[in-house]
Amino acid sequence: MRAVAMLDHKLHLREIATPTPGPGEVLVKTLACGICGSDLHALKYTEKLIDGARRSGGAFVMDAKRDIVMGHEFCAEIVDHGPGSPKTLKAGTRVCAMPILVGAKGVSTVGYSNDAPGGYGELMRLMEPLLLPVPDGVSTEHAALTEPMAVGLHAVKKAHLTKDDVPLVIGCGPVGLAVIAALRLEGVRPIVAADFSSRRRALALAMGADEVVDPAKDSPYTTWRGLAAWQDASKAPLMPPWMPGPALRPAVIFECVGVPGVIDAILANAPPAARIVVVGVCMERDQFEPMFGINKELNLQFVLGYTPEEFAATLGHIGRGELHVDPLVTGKVGLEGVAGAFEALASPETHAKILVEPWRA
Amino acid sequence: MRAVAMLDHKLHLREIATPTPGPGEVLVKTLACGICGSDLHALKYTEKLIDGARRSGGAFVMDAKRDIVMGHEFCAEIVDHGPGSPKTLKAGTRVCAMPILVGAKGVSTVGYSNDAPGGYGELMRLMEPLLLPVPDGVSTEHAALTEPMAVGLHAVKKAHLTKDDVPLVIGCGPVGLAVIAALRLEGVRPIVAADFSSRRRALALAMGADEVVDPAKDSPYTTWRGLAAWQDASKAPLMPPWMPGPALRPAVIFECVGVPGVIDAILANAPPAARIVVVGVCMERDQFEPMFGINKELNLQFVLGYTPEEFAATLGHIGRGELHVDPLVTGKVGLEGVAGAFEALASPETHAKILVEPWRA
Repeated sequence: MRAVAMLDHKLHLREIATPTPGPGEVLVKTLACGICGSDLHALKYTEKLIDGARRSGGAFVMDAKRDIVMGHEFCAEIVDHGPGSPKTLKAGTRVCAMPILVGAKGVSTVGYSNDAPGGYGELMRLMEPLLLPVPDGVSTEHAALTEPMAVGLHAVKKAHLTKDDVPLVIGCGPVGLAVIAALRLEGVRPIVAADFSSRRRALALAMGADEVVDPAKDSPYTTWRGLAAWQDASKAPLMPPWMPGPALRPAVIFECVGVPGVIDAILANAPPAARIVVVGVCMERDQFEPMFGINKELNLQFVLGYTPEEFAATLGHIGRGELHVDPLVTGKVGLEGVAGAFEALASPETHAKILVEPWRA
Repeated sequence: MRAVAMLDHKLHLREIATPTPGPGEVLVKTLACGICGSDLHALKYTEKLIDGARRSGGAFVMDAKRDIVMGHEFCAEIVDHGPGSPKTLKAGTRVCAMPILVGAKGVSTVGYSNDAPGGYGELMRLMEPLLLPVPDGVSTEHAALTEPMAVGLHAVKKAHLTKDDVPLVIGCGPVGLAVIAALRLEGVRPIVAADFSSRRRALALAMGADEVVDPAKDSPYTTWRGLAAWQDASKAPLMPPWMPGPALRPAVIFECVGVPGVIDAILANAPPAARIVVVGVCMERDQFEPMFGINKELNLQFVLGYTPEEFAATLGHIGRGELHVDPLVTGKVGLEGVAGAFEALASPETHAKILVEPWRA
């Protein structure tokens, strides 16, 4: 089959062996697969990603010296079933699934494994028990957004939001946009979002942000403060006496950038008692000043991925039109276009999500 | 009056002006005042402390070029009342109080202010509404431990512990020991505690730790894992599939060291989904690897101080013998001995808490 493989920090269009589904697995044809920011990171920092996963007990076990076919945000179509399958879902059914294969050697991630090629190839193996049929009437493009939107939903769930909270989203790439959509779903508003890119700020508004800020011109925190006053001042919580300042609704700040220095900047500027959800994936060592966290009693919640329930719920929300995804897809390419799409995505001014359609001529 | 003042990173025994209590204030005689690790930090890093507080909106507003009389862990005796006082508590009453003065210029901290001398002086001004009478039968020494024990109680409250959690205390100086005592009060066990000092490990056991570890010999995390297995395996929570490993009871790790590198080491070694409570006060820039937090979905809660309710509750717990404080006081000095006590406290092998008794000859 044809696939785009990563080797030596480059993408190569190759003819590779067709995968064979084992027991409990299905063979699927990739209909559409989104390019994830993590794939851009992985191309640049392959060894760091593998090393970081190893040292923290993660499941991204890969050999950087062998081909890796990435792509974990997919909608696919069942082609064949592995031995002994109950065939609950017939060949031809469109499906989404968490990009996970559990085998004798443990867990591997579809798209981050030498042996489980992802959606930048024509065919994939998936686990049959994880398959979710895509409802009729839901487009393949929208279904392929299930995975990245589940990341946003999970981040918002981990924030344990109440209606009093006022969210601030730092960074409006695909992760930040997914967070904004999930915040709208939860009904927690106003939503303030910040990005240096005018294109991304426009997308943030289209996805449901109430107010967008260009940090080159204004402080996102000042804008946030202007919108976070209590309507009913009696609801303002008592702050410790060593934390003076106006009483404001609780701040929940989503870090959706993932480059060094951003967490420290958030710690420095966050209001007292803010909860910070780190959704961006910074793969490098970083610096921070603990005193900011201490003096303001900040909370940092790092998040990764989603639960199976959240993944399934996300497809349901997309299917019922409750999660707004229309503005996200800004381009589509065949396998020949993947390397170029990676380059285009490095700039924030053009694209949000590019879908790869491996069957395209 | 006689007082020990900090100037130019040195301690000086001086004769200074006797404070005059204003409206809403009382004049008190310092009976006993503990030396806090933060005072050791402040002596070494005066400018950093002031700068960090300024940049994070804290209330430690001080001029490092003028005398600062430190000391905020005190038991005192009422000497006089300010103008218009209701005199609810008579002169001669022993009291504890949060070390806070609220005035026209804002909030200042007794012991971290040029104008609010703390317990390393014979007399202090305190706010009358904050005074808590020390019950008969509670020794002055024990009452003086209210403030540091409240720090431990607050840290434990901010962890929102359940009976399933298994705590790990990293560092058994006075802060770690206060956390251990508060954990025993909450009944969350087993309590694992780690310190390089044999003296401090012995104190940790005396304060209620179930197991102590010398990190030079064994990994605290390995010891923790050995004690954190579920008695009832069906209670083990589902972990995301990319977090393999044995299911263990939830980890709550208390960082009670406060030097660079400790938070990163905890992030590197913590089990998945661990909650980390940062009680130690690191005043320097620090490094960390976000990937550890991300891959394991860790939570970092920075804490500072305590609420008025927690402070009052701590004195109550000490009074009823529910918070174990006996092993903590390892020395007492007069004002002449303060500088020497600061030096002695730099080594972990001798002392836990030294009380200053300014009235001593």
